[in-house]
This record gives sequence, C-alpha cells and structure tokens, in this order.
Amino acid sequence: MTDRPKTPLLDRVTLPSDMKALSDRELRQLADELRAETISAVSVTGGHLGAGLGVVELTVALHAVFDTPRDKIIWDVGHQCYPHKILTGRRDRIRTLRTEGGLSGFTKRSESPYDPFGAAHSSTSISAALGFAMAADLGGDPGDAVAVIGDGSMSAGMAFEAMNNAGHLKKRLFVVLNDNEMSIAPPVGALSSYLSRLYAEAPLQDLKAAAKGALGLLPPPFQEGARRAKEMLKGMAMGGTLFEELGFSYIGPIDGHDLDQLLPILRTARARATGPILLHVLTKKGKGYAPAEAARDRGHATGKFDVLTGVQAKAASNAPSYTKVFAQSLIAQAERDDKIVAVTAAMPDGTGLNLFADRFPRRCFDVGIAEQHAVTFSAGLAAGGMKPFCAIYSTFLQRGYDQVVHDVAIQRLPVRFAIDRAGLVGADGATHAGSFDVAFLANLPGMVVMAASDEAELTHMVATAVAHDDGPIAFRFPRGDGVGIELPSRGAPIEIGRARLIRSGNRVALLSFGTRLAETLKAAESLAQKGLMPTIVDARFAKPLDRDMILNLARNHEALITIEEGAIGGFGSHVAQLLADEGIFDAGLKYRSMVLPDTFIDHASPEAMYRAAGMDAAQIEAKVLQTLNIASLSKRA
Amino acid sequence: MTDRPKTPLLDRVTLPSDMKALSDRELRQLADELRAETISAVSVTGGHLGAGLGVVELTVALHAVFDTPRDKIIWDVGHQCYPHKILTGRRDRIRTLRTEGGLSGFTKRSESPYDPFGAAHSSTSISAALGFAMAADLGGDPGDAVAVIGDGSMSAGMAFEAMNNAGHLKKRLFVVLNDNEMSIAPPVGALSSYLSRLYAEAPLQDLKAAAKGALGLLPPPFQEGARRAKEMLKGMAMGGTLFEELGFSYIGPIDGHDLDQLLPILRTARARATGPILLHVLTKKGKGYAPAEAARDRGHATGKFDVLTGVQAKAASNAPSYTKVFAQSLIAQAERDDKIVAVTAAMPDGTGLNLFADRFPRRCFDVGIAEQHAVTFSAGLAAGGMKPFCAIYSTFLQRGYDQVVHDVAIQRLPVRFAIDRAGLVGADGATHAGSFDVAFLANLPGMVVMAASDEAELTHMVATAVAHDDGPIAFRFPRGDGVGIELPSRGAPIEIGRARLIRSGNRVALLSFGTRLAETLKAAESLAQKGLMPTIVDARFAKPLDRDMILNLARNHEALITIEEGAIGGFGSHVAQLLADEGIFDAGLKYRSMVLPDTFIDHASPEAMYRAAGMDAAQIEAKVLQTLNIASLSKRA
Repeated sequence: MTDRPKTPLLDRVTLPSDMKALSDRELRQLADELRAETISAVSVTGGHLGAGLGVVELTVALHAVFDTPRDKIIWDVGHQCYPHKILTGRRDRIRTLRTEGGLSGFTKRSESPYDPFGAAHSSTSISAALGFAMAADLGGDPGDAVAVIGDGSMSAGMAFEAMNNAGHLKKRLFVVLNDNEMSIAPPVGALSSYLSRLYAEAPLQDLKAAAKGALGLLPPPFQEGARRAKEMLKGMAMGGTLFEELGFSYIGPIDGHDLDQLLPILRTARARATGPILLHVLTKKGKGYAPAEAARDRGHATGKFDVLTGVQAKAASNAPSYTKVFAQSLIAQAERDDKIVAVTAAMPDGTGLNLFADRFPRRCFDVGIAEQHAVTFSAGLAAGGMKPFCAIYSTFLQRGYDQVVHDVAIQRLPVRFAIDRAGLVGADGATHAGSFDVAFLANLPGMVVMAASDEAELTHMVATAVAHDDGPIAFRFPRGDGVGIELPSRGAPIEIGRARLIRSGNRVALLSFGTRLAETLKAAESLAQKGLMPTIVDARFAKPLDRDMILNLARNHEALITIEEGAIGGFGSHVAQLLADEGIFDAGLKYRSMVLPDTFIDHASPEAMYRAAGMDAAQIEAKVLQTLNIASLSKRA
Repeated sequence: MTDRPKTPLLDRVTLPSDMKALSDRELRQLADELRAETISAVSVTGGHLGAGLGVVELTVALHAVFDTPRDKIIWDVGHQCYPHKILTGRRDRIRTLRTEGGLSGFTKRSESPYDPFGAAHSSTSISAALGFAMAADLGGDPGDAVAVIGDGSMSAGMAFEAMNNAGHLKKRLFVVLNDNEMSIAPPVGALSSYLSRLYAEAPLQDLKAAAKGALGLLPPPFQEGARRAKEMLKGMAMGGTLFEELGFSYIGPIDGHDLDQLLPILRTARARATGPILLHVLTKKGKGYAPAEAARDRGHATGKFDVLTGVQAKAASNAPSYTKVFAQSLIAQAERDDKIVAVTAAMPDGTGLNLFADRFPRRCFDVGIAEQHAVTFSAGLAAGGMKPFCAIYSTFLQRGYDQVVHDVAIQRLPVRFAIDRAGLVGADGATHAGSFDVAFLANLPGMVVMAASDEAELTHMVATAVAHDDGPIAFRFPRGDGVGIELPSRGAPIEIGRARLIRSGNRVALLSFGTRLAETLKAAESLAQKGLMPTIVDARFAKPLDRDMILNLARNHEALITIEEGAIGGFGSHVAQLLADEGIFDAGLKYRSMVLPDTFIDHASPEAMYRAAGMDAAQIEAKVLQTLNIASLSKRA
C-alpha cells in the first residue's frame, strides 16, 4: 500500500467550478497535486500513465479557462483523461480505474457530463468537436467545443478530413494539438517531421513574451472587432503555415507544462476566437515522474507499480503471448522468404512487429495511425509481388474495412491480415473488443478466415498465410498469453478449409472456432465425468468451412453447437447457412450457436467478461445440457 | 448510329509502345483523335464522360513518357480511364463499356496489365502506388509508380495518410494531382481553397518557360547528382508549400491540356526524380466537348447521347427514384422539426441532399470525400442535440465503419443512416454494390436496421428515424426507381421491430427484407396460379427482429424462406440465430435463406445481375418448390 500524497488544494476541488476562485499561483500548485494524485492512483490500478502526466497542466488550464461541462472538452483517444477525471467529480472512484464496475480508462459519456464525447480509438475528436460547434450554431446544445489531440492522432486521415471541413466552415472551434512526439510508439510520417521543424524554428521564450502581452489585453475590450482578434492571435503564432493553409489560425508552439503561458493564451483565444484555432502545445509524455520519463514508452501503459521505485508488479505466466508467438513465427518464415514484409499502423509494440523490425528493418513499415492507408498500401505491395502481413488489431481493422473490401478482396490480392486482440480484451473495455471481424470478413468473396485455437496453431496459420497466394487470408488471435502448449520450431501450412477433429464422441458435437476451444475442452471433461462424451472439433476456418466435416457432425449427432468469440454474423451464421442450404434442418437438428451477446461489454477482468458473455466452461456445459433437454446428468447416466 | 470520327493516327496505336515513334506534334494530334473517339464511344454506351475528357492530354503524355505497363499508372477512382483503355489495347471493345461481358467502367486488374491496380472508390491511388514503389525497392516487380488523383479525392483522409507516409519514406514516387476543381460535385473544404490560391498565384505562362528550360536539359547528363535534380525540380515549382511540408517536391501548376508543358515536365521529372514528387496539373472536366463543358456536372455521368447535340436518351419511368423520395421525405420532416440536419460526403446529387440543401442551406453539410469524418461529425451533431441524417451509399459507408461502431453505436447516439445504393447497382459493378451493410450493421448492439420494400415504406422509415431518439438507426434502399406506389404526403413512424404481414397463406412463409418483396410477390402469384398460397411478410427490420411474427411463421408453416439483397451474415443470419436459440430447428423446419451469392458480381443490367444472384421471381419460386420437395405443381394441386 502506497502512502497517499498530501493534496490540500486538490482536496478542495471536487468539480471545475471549485477552481474558479483559485489564483494562477494556486492553479500551479493544484497541477502539482494533481500529478501526484494521478501517479498514486495509477500505482494502485495500473493503466495509462504517461499520457495523463503529459497533460496535467493542460487539464488544469482548460478547466480553469473554459466553462465545463457547458463547454465541451473532447480528449482524443481518451487515455490521457485520468487527471481530467480527478478534477471532474470522479476522484473518489479514481482507484477503481479499469476494474469491473469502476471508472473506464477512457472518457465515456455515460460516466459523466464532463465527458461529452467518449473515445478510445484515435483521431475522432476534431470531427466530434466540429459536430458540437455546428450544433451550437444551429440552436442545439450551446457552449464551446475544444478538441485535444496528440501529434500521432493528428497524422490519421480522419483528423485531416475534420480539419479540412472545419477550415471550410470557418466556425469558432478550438483544437489543441498536444505535441509530445510520441503517441504510443514514436510517431512517424512527414507531418511529424514538419511539427519538429516548427518548434525547432520557434524558441519557446519568444512566445512567452507574446503570451504575457496577450495577458495585458484581458479582460477583452468589447469594442474590438473580429479583425483585431484575428490579428492578435496571428501575432502569437510563430509558424504553422500548414494549418493556416487549412483555414485555421495557428498559435504556438506553447510550453504545455508552463501555466504562465497556457492560461493567458487560452484566455485570449477563448475571448477572441471567431473561427477555428489550432493551439500547438508541446508536452512531455510521462512528465514529472522520473521512471515514466526514463521508460522507452514514456510510461504509456503500466501495471500496478511502486511509486518510489517505479517497479511494476508483473503477472506470472508460463506461456508466451499470442502477439509474441505471431511475431516470432513471422520472423522464422521471413528468414526463408525475402518477399515477406510487414505493415503496422503505429502499433509496432502492440503487434509484435517491433521484433520483426529489429530483424528486418527494411521489410517492416510503420505507416502511422493510418489503417486505411495500411491496408491499401499492403494491397499495393501484394500487387507488386511481395507477401505483405498487415498486422492490425481486430477493432482497428474496422478503420480499414472499405479498403479490405475494395482494394484487397475485390482484386483478390494476397494480403495477409494478422488480427490481434480478437475477442474480449479485459480492462480496455468495449471500444477495444474485437467482436466483429469474423462477421465483416467472412462474407467477403474469396477471403479466407482462420482463428487460432492455441499458440501452436497460430504458428501453423502464419505458415498457411505465407503459402496462400491466391487471394487474401486473415487469421485472428486473442489478447494475452497462450495456453502453454509446446511450439513447433516452424509452423507448417494447414490445408485451406480443413477442420481438426479433437475427439470423437456422441450425441452432441461441439464445434469451436478459436481460443474458446480450451473452455470447450473443460466443459467436455466435466460432461465426460457425468457420462456424456461430446465430439470436439477445432473448426480452424470460418471460411471456407469444412463442409464435409460439418455435415458429418450434423448427420451423426443429435445436437451441434458452435462456439466463437465474436458477434452474430460470423462463424455460426456461416454454419447455419450451410446446414439450411443442405436441408439439414428439415428433419430436425438441435443446432445452437454461441456468440458474443448483443451488448457492448464494459471493462472487467477477462474472466468476468467471459462470464458476462456466457462463454466460459460452465456455460458451455449448461448450453449442452439445455440443448439436449437434460436437467442434470447423473454419473455414468 | 453516330458516324465514327476519323482517327488516322489513333488507328496506328494499339498499345502505348506504338506511341514511342510519334513526334510531339503527332502526339498532339493523337490527343485530339483520342478525345473524338472517347466522345463517340460514350455516346453509344453512356457512362463517365467528363472525367475522361479532362485527362486526354495527360493520358497521352503519361503513356508517351513512361514505360507502361512496366511503369504503373494508377488512376484514382478510375472513371477517367476510358481514353487510357483506348490507348492500351482495348479500343476494339470500348463500345462495350459497362455492359454485361464488356469492359468495366473503371480500371480493373483482371482486364489488362495496363491496369495495375483497379479502383472505383476514391483516394486509394497514392497508397497503392507507394506499395508498388516499395515493392520495386525490395526486389518485387520493378518500374515506376504514378498515381493520378483528383483534387476532390485528395481531400480524403486516406490520401493524406498516404502522402504523409510517402513523404516519410522518401522513395521515388509520382503523384499527379489532377486539379479540375470538380470531383462529382464541386469540391468543398479548406484544401480546395488552398489549391485555388496556389494557381491564382502562379500564372501558367511562367511555368511554360520553365518547362522549356527543362526540356533543354534532356537527355540527363549522368554526372549530375541528386542535389542538382532536386534543385531543378524545385525551380519549376511556383508554390505548393503544403505538399513540400509533407515531404514532396512540388511542380506546378501545369496546364493539363498543353502537351508542350506536360511532355517536357514529365520527361524531366521521370529522368531526375529521387524522391516523391507532386505534379499539380490543371484540367477542365468535360474539356473539348461543348455540351459537357456547359453542363452543371461537366458531363460527369451520362446516358447514351447524340454527339452533335449532346442530347441524352432518357429511360422512361413512371415512378420517382428512391433517392428523390428519400430527399423529399426528409424535407417534409425537416419543415416540422428544425433539429433535423443532413450530412453528405461529397455526394449531394447522388444522395438527393442537393434538394435538402436548396431548402435548408444551413442545415445541410457536404463534408467532402470524408466518410470517416462524416460519421463522427454526425455523432457530434447528435451529441449536441441535433437529429442528423448521415446519407451515404452502402458501399461508401464501409469507409466509416469504425466510426459507426466506436463513435455512434457504443455511445448509442441517435445518428440516422440513410443508406442509398443498397444491393446490386447495375453498370457500376461490384465495387459499387451495397452487399455488406446489413451484416456489418445489424450485429452492432443497439443499432436499428430497416430496409424499405417500396418508396411509400421509405417515407415511413424516414419518419421512423426522425422519431427514434434512443440510439442509432439505419434504413437502406436501392438504386433506381420505386415501384410506382402512391406516396403519403408525409410518412408515419413505424413501431420499432414490427414486421408487416402482406398475405396469409399456408405451407411456406416467404419473409422478405427490402425491395425483393416485389419479386417475392411475383413468385407468389405464379405459385398461387398453381395452387400454392405462400404467406408473405415484409420484415422491415433486420434488427430488432419481429420475434413473435417470425416464431409464429416458423411454427405454423412447413417451410420458412428469408429473402434479402445482401450478403450472408445479415437478416437471414439473425433469423437463423433466433430460430436456433428458440429450438425451432430441433423438431424440423424447412428453413432457407436467400442471400447474395459468394462472388463479386460484375457489371451488367440490373435484371442480369439479379438473375446471376439467384434473386428474381423465377428463382424465388424455384427455391420454394425445391424446399417443399415439389418437382412441379399441377394447377390447383
């Protein structure tokens, strides 16, 4: 148990309105206390630390200057929002972050009126803020809209689309570019170089003078018109042509840890802005906590840790993560095949491709937060004769869906999709759950869709994907560690569309797609002890289905139950279509399809989430009994 | 029958290699002949005219200077490719454009090696070209990559993502920005204003001189290094800071109809480029054909027409288009509810929102080719208290899928999705088919998904969407004209999740979702004449299902057949899941689900496409007979 920090000022602030009486000097102290409280809280809960520490002063300044929740602050991605949560009535629950029933690790509309627009995926904030701004303009909810977006998030096409539209509409809108040269990994791309040049050319101390000048003009003389306001704001800018060409007034760069700059500049901007304004704020991820500042990822995400030393408590696991198995399998294949290349959209560590990049730096592409481009770039690589592995989390692949359809599937290009974080993901909650990929991929003509049931299967699926050159192929695997099975030194290709019979039994066939196989086996074991021996099959493929195997199961069992960690429309739906087409239902078959429930499941432990989803061994067993109309089995019945 | 133009030079050019011997003067004549041939061909076939006419000289110049198909020219969107097809071995089939078995109206890999990357959706070309460039760099297919992209397409985030990545990778790559101030509608957005300023500031004649100077430097003296090349290219540029900030060398603006500029500049660029180059080319959509130049849409898409007068042959229809019914219904609702706003992504005419904009200019937003932003902007509007209708074609909504999931569905925001072009679309082919929307929307928790079975139903669904304020709602409707049914003056809300019994019958229930209802009724009529009276239900909702109705149908009929114009995973899959969950299959039910087949269906007439899809009345009837195991029905059997 870590001692709580002393926070006399913060103790008096429950809501932002409590900050209005504080002097600028007190606001500086409040920021210090807020930083200490954030560190203390995350040491208990684990979670996203670095991003929040980077915006402590910005959080204080925004709430001090703007009138929240009437004014809407929209935090892009949202993982930097812990200090914001502490200041907006949620301090009493801050040590429940990311736990079941506790606070979300992201902003969330249902949690607080101070979270006007939730997030978790990146680059949505400017679009949302512009929506609020235009709604206010048309008689909807009044108030200003402020988007706070990181430099990494700004590189996504969606942010550009929103800037382009905002510059065109010319309405009052605040975009705070939180430039920490670091999203999750160091940012890449020409925009990032541009931002670096911007602040290399504009020494911070010059702006400090400008900020002080602006302070002198407050409170705003009301006789001053829009023209004057625009000029004054322009005078505070040191560069930013790119943003000005998109129709924004540019202010910056500003030292984002210096409230002496932030407060007057924000006050001036709020008082005078007539159109869209971009405030370029420089911050340091992990600021003010030495272990985070020293870490390679600036304390991006952390487990529980000791505040004094920064040492994290590690969960013990004997098995490697699926992510690592994927990366190592791909490296093993790439050593024998120089056409293999890999593409990630700003997630080299999360996808394991950092390992691939270490081994094959020229053959690994981090394209930035740009899933649309990542997919079509992969398609271009495939059309040019390479074997691209496009590694994207299930939920982020949604960002590149049209590109999967239009550029990959219609053209039957052999792009290999490595889909990590498929299924439920625990503490990151609903926004990061990979629930829909099987449904949205398996109905694309020519697409092969696989799911690995364990980490050895994953190595074989990587090999299968290398070998499959006649169209696109996708394989999904979950967050977390494997089951601990022995790994082959190198995977061997699986025949496309061939399922794997695990065990022959009778009465009921359990047809599992993916890693729920382990729970299915547990359920079967429990049933076996009661005298019922289900047949167990690892489907491996949602597309193409192993028709012979499935029809055989259907014809030789009283019941057939499919199990998958995905929403309706995926594997089970394809099986049902096959059974219907073949007239299997005509004479009766106890068919059931276990899919994720029709709700977004909130963050919790993986076990709790599986229980909520009805997908653990006990529930699989219960489904079998219920389907067979067996109230309970007596031993050796 | 229009007389064919005289084309003596073009008659000698079957492939680009035939152009290599032509002088620049002959190339100018070739361009004139190519324009005449393009106009003549499209007068016979109909199709996209204006875009092709705008790039006649550019097409000639690119093929004259680059070494296609070794070098890859990637036409963004692809609807400007008719002149390119004429020059690349497809002139003999150019009058089969967009007809069954004929040439595609877009570029298509399977059609020609001169189409290295197919398109139809916008803004993919730079990503693909960068893929080719990096593949060549890594020992894949050699050759240069040239993306030709319009100014409208450039405003999409995906293009920005690709530019950002290309500027970072710094490899040789050619991007031709075909700036005609006109994509399908006039372009919007700050980028568009920026481009206008660029060429306002750089008189074309200055560049002409620069171009001539560049010509003098050819052939390239080999002793000159990369530095010199870069400086020379820079010397040709008159502006373009935005692109230079993204890491591109900028050349332009260039008169895209003047081969005296295009040829030397392209030759120089090809000889000297060491990194990514943006060539800013100004063209006129519809150039050289007076009726197209005079048209509001610059002859964007046309029916067959008379070459001399430009007068188009119009297909007669007594019914209004679904698009128009949607627009008029929305206007009628918006007259009574000032919270209703509308959002389109660069398709005001295609979605009918041009009519809405005429009536409510402040309440209509054309955000440019920016579906990701369109969806989240709509979510922001909804969060701000408005009632946004986000009108996007089914296939383009794929571009905003993650935003539908993450920003709309998870937050349960009442965004109304008006999904036009749902189902098969005829001449535009597979890329424009709206096949997947039901599957990718109906599995999202909290989403309501409707399909209109006729145009009167559409007016009711617009009213239903206005009234539904508890989460997102989507309604789909097809391309083309309604069935001619009488329209209510204003739609009335339908109870959510309530199907519509059209006719009670026996033995078999036909459960139709969407406009296949008309064919279903035809099939039923034919069956009735033979003594079988099917029950017919218009499902209206894929989500939530009308459980009572469907379970009732299942329990009281020998067979139940669902019919929908969508891929597997949608309506039929949800019905199957319900039937399985309820144990309906246990005792036997002849259940069948008619969905779009597992292929991408090539362009053809709508009737031919429905026949290919197995979705016309005869095939519905055949499915009924086959399901009931009836070889043939005798009259009054």
